[in-house]
Order: sequence, then C-alpha cells, then structure tokens
Amino acid sequence: MPETITSAANAAVKTLRSLATKKGRKEAGLLLAEGERLMREAAELGRWPQLAAVSEAALGRPSVRDFVRAAENAGTRVLILSPRLLEQITRRDNAQSVIGAYRPRLAELTELTGDLLVALHEVRDPGNLGTILRTCDAVGASGVVLTGECCDPFSVEAVRASMGSIFAIPLVQTQFQALDAWRKRAGCSVIGTSLRAAQRHDEPDVSGRVILLMGNEQSGLPPDIEAACDHLVRIPMRGRADSLNLAVSTSVMLYDVWRRRGFAKPNHA
Amino acid sequence: MPETITSAANAAVKTLRSLATKKGRKEAGLLLAEGERLMREAAELGRWPQLAAVSEAALGRPSVRDFVRAAENAGTRVLILSPRLLEQITRRDNAQSVIGAYRPRLAELTELTGDLLVALHEVRDPGNLGTILRTCDAVGASGVVLTGECCDPFSVEAVRASMGSIFAIPLVQTQFQALDAWRKRAGCSVIGTSLRAAQRHDEPDVSGRVILLMGNEQSGLPPDIEAACDHLVRIPMRGRADSLNLAVSTSVMLYDVWRRRGFAKPNHA
Repeated sequence: MPETITSAANAAVKTLRSLATKKGRKEAGLLLAEGERLMREAAELGRWPQLAAVSEAALGRPSVRDFVRAAENAGTRVLILSPRLLEQITRRDNAQSVIGAYRPRLAELTELTGDLLVALHEVRDPGNLGTILRTCDAVGASGVVLTGECCDPFSVEAVRASMGSIFAIPLVQTQFQALDAWRKRAGCSVIGTSLRAAQRHDEPDVSGRVILLMGNEQSGLPPDIEAACDHLVRIPMRGRADSLNLAVSTSVMLYDVWRRRGFAKPNHA
Repeated sequence: MPETITSAANAAVKTLRSLATKKGRKEAGLLLAEGERLMREAAELGRWPQLAAVSEAALGRPSVRDFVRAAENAGTRVLILSPRLLEQITRRDNAQSVIGAYRPRLAELTELTGDLLVALHEVRDPGNLGTILRTCDAVGASGVVLTGECCDPFSVEAVRASMGSIFAIPLVQTQFQALDAWRKRAGCSVIGTSLRAAQRHDEPDVSGRVILLMGNEQSGLPPDIEAACDHLVRIPMRGRADSLNLAVSTSVMLYDVWRRRGFAKPNHA
C-alpha cells in the first residue's frame, strides 16, 4: 500500500529532491523520470523504479492504480505526495502526477550490437543528449557512446528530453581511444562531422556497421579525433547560419543513413 | 559614453529584468538577446538594440569597445553592469557579458518570398521554435509562420535557441485560415506532417513553392487543418518510439526537401 507523506523533511522525499543535482544522483544512485506514460514504457522494458511518488488525484485514475499495484509487486516503494511536494521535487509548475526514481544503467562497448551507432564527444547540453536518444530510438540506432567529458545523461533534463528512450537505448561512457580500439575489432566505420570536411554528409558508404561521431556543441571534434575517423563529412548550410543545433545535426545524419538504407524495418542486422 | 549602474533598482535595469516574462516583454516592447557574437550578427543585418548592457571586464576587449561605440552611434543606450546584475537579468550563472534589448519585428504574409517556408501550428516550446528558426536559416528557408496559439517567439529561450536567426528569418503570426487563403493566391503547396499519413515525408513533389506545416508537440495537427493540406506525410519511425522532437522532425523535413532540390546554393528563386 502506498504511504501518504506530507512533510518535505521526510527522508524519501529528500532523496527524490536530491535527484535534481548530479551530486544527489550520484549519492543516491538514482535518476528521476516523470510521467505515467514514460514509466509505463519503462515497465514494458522491464524497468521499475526503486521509489515512486504519485498525487492523491492521480491515484483516482484506474491506470495509475494498476501501475502502482504492479510497481509495488515489482518491489517499488510508492509514496503519495501533495502536488506541492511533487512540484518541489521536479522543480516545475504543474508537475507530472507520477514520478519515479530508477537505477541508471550503463552498457559496455562489447554489448553494442546493430549496424548504426552514435558517438557523442563532449556533448554539453542534456536536452540535446536526451533528444538524440529519442531520435536514435526512432531510427533504430542501437546505442549511444559518450566519450570525453559529457553532461550527465541521467539528469532530469536529459531523461525528460529522451521521452523514455533513456530506458531503451544502450548508453556507454568511455574514452575515445577505447571506442576507437573496440570499433576496429568490431568492424565499424566511423563517420565524423566537421565544418572543415569536404565530403557531404550523404556521400560516404553506409552499407556496413557505422558509427556517427558528433563533436561538442561549441568546438566540434578535436583534430586528433577527426584524424581517427574513416570519413569526415559536413552537413550543407547556406545563408548566414554556420551551425546547427547538435540534436538537429545528429538527427539529420541519422535519418539520411536510414534513408540510404531504404528505411528498412528490422531493428538489427 | 556607457553609464555605469550599480543598483538593481535602476529603471533601465528593471526594464532589462522584466524581459524574462511575456508580460514584461509586451509592456516594454522589447526582447532580450545575449552574447557579443549574436549581437554582431544582428548588427550585420542592420539591427541594433534600444538598450544594451556590458560588464566592465567585457569592455576591456577591443571588439566589445568597437561594438559599443558603433551601437551608441546607432542610438543604443549602453549600460555598464556588474556580473551579478547581468546574471540577475539573464537568470543564468556565468551570464553573457554583453546583452541587448531589441524591438521585435513581425512580418506580414505578403512579405514572404522564396520557395521554402515553414508553418508551425500551436508550437508550445520556445526552445523548439528557436531551434527551428536556426535550421531554417541553415537550409535557406525564407520564413516561419506561426498559426494558432503559439509560445512567444521573443522569449529568452526562443531567442537563445535561434542563435541569432530570430533576426534573420521573417516571422509571421496569424491564423491558419489567413495562411491558407494567402498561400492559395501565392501558389504554395502545403505539406503537413501527421502520424496518420500514408505517404512518406520524402515522397511528395517539392519542385514548386512549398510550405512545410508542423503541428503541436503533443497533439499534432487538428483534423480540419490536416484536411486543408495538399499532402500529408509521416516521417518513418521504428522501434518503440512513436514521435520525434518537433525541432528534429521539422529539420529532417527541411533537409530532405533541400536534398531533393540538389542542395542548390542560391537562397531565393
């Protein structure tokens, strides 16, 4: 049975509130996900929260009652909180009426399968990272590798922007050298994007296993990493713009690879 | 000569602070743009702020001194503010050291030229709107039309995400009926996106004047607006994802139209 809690000083509420910061997430070993729909999708992938919170009003909905029962059966501790406490935890007005704290999962390079992967070197913006996970999910890319100093993929902003894809897309954190060594063994070609590239993004061969490598929002890829790529490509631009949002450029690349593969349906080779 | 101001109670500082809210922007008739680079680009387009603020440290940079002198010659009132006041105005840590308040400009439908336009019906997220303006700039789309109840295109988030494209891309606010009447006279075909469409996004003819029409982040396009489109298309998706971020889907559409036009260089027909 869910416990009703009214005090912001309650330890579990404090834990949930702490998940807004990287330090808090690290100490608790949890990430915060919001919304009934997203949490149902996580459950379909076999992921249940350690700790969940719902509003009294949300518990009036049969679908939420069912979800809470199933979560409790799976071992989730469920709290009933006031809308005000939910707003304090999520730091937004009109907070979602169901939230959950999940154990984040990272994958290893050797677990990655499939013929389309994304690597992000020093991505800084969690909204971009989450949006890229969402697009990866849509095009059937089978993993995202974060190299160098990246933003926290388990931040509320990244989880929110991923729309649940954080639970669906394997995520690896490593250094570029390790990625480069693995991908040679695994037979992946690396297509890096660079404003300095001569080749257009839709030109290199994408028939084999491909890793699309994208650089930092401000500075792109460093020269040594560019030098390690099999292909360097640029996305055409005209007018006064000289750059694209990173989630946009990654998504344009992903869709163009998938297009050239005939928008084939099966998820993995 | 720039005036040094140290008090948060100063009227001009209060005006700058008010630009964080829609009400404040409306009352002042101004929008807030941040960053030397962006403001230089606006100046290249002939746009100068009514009011600008710089930090003492920024004024040590010759490029900023030159910009301030040129802005004052163009009639801009320039304030020197502490980093703390700049942070209060922009509501972010490590605020940009140069900011400016500009008169926003809207265009009329009859001013729109070119063979690629975007219409957004009830777009809600200002970050999406700004990112779409940025991509429009990159692909040479020549205008964005906002129909129905949209978020404020002059919010700090939209201006920030546009990376200066808010000053470059004509922006129209109207109702869909007015857009539909104009586009028939102007000989534009409308390609709407819908999860219910049978045609793929890269199938309809895009050789003439085209308006890409995108719906609201949550609910897409309403049925009566879908019915008014010449083509309804869907962007393919596989895996568990059933939607894309709106800036991503708009950008994938824009790049695919431009690709099928051969990534032609000239900006307008």
